[in-house]
Amino acid sequence: MKLATVRHGGRTTAALVVAGGYQPLPARNLSELLALPGWKAILKEASSGHCGPDVLPASEVELLNPVPSPAKVICCGLNYSEHILEMGRELPSFPTLFAKFADTLTDPDAPIVADESVDLDWEAELAVVVGSTLKDASEDEAAAAIAGYTVANDISMRDWQRRTLQWFQGKAFDRTTPLGPVLVTADALDPEAGLEVICTLNGEEVQRGNTKTLVFSAAKLLSYISTFTVLRPGDVVLTGTPGGVGMGMVPPRFLKDGDELVTEIPGIGTLSNRISLRINASL
Amino acid sequence: MKLATVRHGGRTTAALVVAGGYQPLPARNLSELLALPGWKAILKEASSGHCGPDVLPASEVELLNPVPSPAKVICCGLNYSEHILEMGRELPSFPTLFAKFADTLTDPDAPIVADESVDLDWEAELAVVVGSTLKDASEDEAAAAIAGYTVANDISMRDWQRRTLQWFQGKAFDRTTPLGPVLVTADALDPEAGLEVICTLNGEEVQRGNTKTLVFSAAKLLSYISTFTVLRPGDVVLTGTPGGVGMGMVPPRFLKDGDELVTEIPGIGTLSNRISLRINASL
Repeated sequence: MKLATVRHGGRTTAALVVAGGYQPLPARNLSELLALPGWKAILKEASSGHCGPDVLPASEVELLNPVPSPAKVICCGLNYSEHILEMGRELPSFPTLFAKFADTLTDPDAPIVADESVDLDWEAELAVVVGSTLKDASEDEAAAAIAGYTVANDISMRDWQRRTLQWFQGKAFDRTTPLGPVLVTADALDPEAGLEVICTLNGEEVQRGNTKTLVFSAAKLLSYISTFTVLRPGDVVLTGTPGGVGMGMVPPRFLKDGDELVTEIPGIGTLSNRISLRINASL
Repeated sequence: MKLATVRHGGRTTAALVVAGGYQPLPARNLSELLALPGWKAILKEASSGHCGPDVLPASEVELLNPVPSPAKVICCGLNYSEHILEMGRELPSFPTLFAKFADTLTDPDAPIVADESVDLDWEAELAVVVGSTLKDASEDEAAAAIAGYTVANDISMRDWQRRTLQWFQGKAFDRTTPLGPVLVTADALDPEAGLEVICTLNGEEVQRGNTKTLVFSAAKLLSYISTFTVLRPGDVVLTGTPGGVGMGMVPPRFLKDGDELVTEIPGIGTLSNRISLRINASL
């Protein structure tokens, strides 16, 4: 099942992706839907039912960030072995974690504007959306609590990220992490069996990894995080990026004003973001 | 003016601290009060008015975390010169920032329970609470947007903090950062003129710093953060800890089960937290 948050006629709604369009669901977005205790029953009902005249035609809607209001956005760095090696590090015993905010997220086709940074870099990622409350969860419990998967690009302000030992400030610029375009429910997709994660810059492929090579699987990450903090429906966990980021290149390569960044996980969908850097443009 | 969030008769309320007790304010806590556009007018009205029979006697209330639901809790590390030197680092050009969650916070007298960590350490801090929305703010604008100040202890799980390069996982255990006991409004307190920040362990003073030695003042921090992410009323910024933390001692010293940790900023108040470590207790 594919779910989305869409704008139609000036309003937003959670929706089920159906033939030809989007079947509205009883919530303004997927964050609100997942907060309903009965969200699974609502989906079952919607997916088994009619697709009547209330289906919104695909041509009339705009796809938005599916989960706009997570209380927690937690990201894993250094989780693909080849990316770890390109960054000059050893394989980790523990996941490297940092936080973003709901404000950091943006829509799947939104422009990325970061006037105060000149070293923007790409990080294509699989994102996991939590479907039920998790605390001190085993991997099996964590796997069962995954609502679904979506695509993210953890666009990073490397100049700010390197200012101090802590990456956070280079990872938390407002509206710089596109998410979407849909949420694929966990029963329909198995990252451990292998999903390609692809990043293309102005038509040139710069990243291609496979989630079966993740050091820490989605379920492992959720289980680990739940040891120290509770995860709730709608929370988002980014699973890390494969090799091929700009700062790993010789010489390093960063995003330029006007660049077209495309992030794709076949089976989920594609993010397409134009980079807008007023500082870079004037250099 | 001193403000608090108190529990009385099974309900919570925001309150103004008055002679003999707490004058209820029209919100369930200070997070909700600060989210009201007219919170300053409400305070003015309450402070100029009568203190009638609806004042809650101090003996009947429990002081809670004053701001229980910030969307953002951002912390500065390495901000007192003597603490920076004891950690073996150089004075910074930029603030080192990391994030916590609302879930990380707890009440001023709550026990601190962290079963999964064995290296708990103390970090007494001045906390700043935001009173109006800030984006790309100058230092003057940031100073004017401070609602007030409170006391925090950024209790840190050093074993988890050191597992990876990123401190976050050792800083975000649920209910390990006590906050309170009151919020002192910005007009009544000037950290740049100097506030003592004191931490006492089982009656022994382990930390004493002064906020006039902060490398980055409260207003500087808010201005800097607002360059990359918007700050809103009720958001919390922790300003860093002075010298004297346990991991800086030779040999390092960590909290033990049953320890009594007292954190004080004269002019604001005192946090008093008992440490409960089931893992340590069984060693």
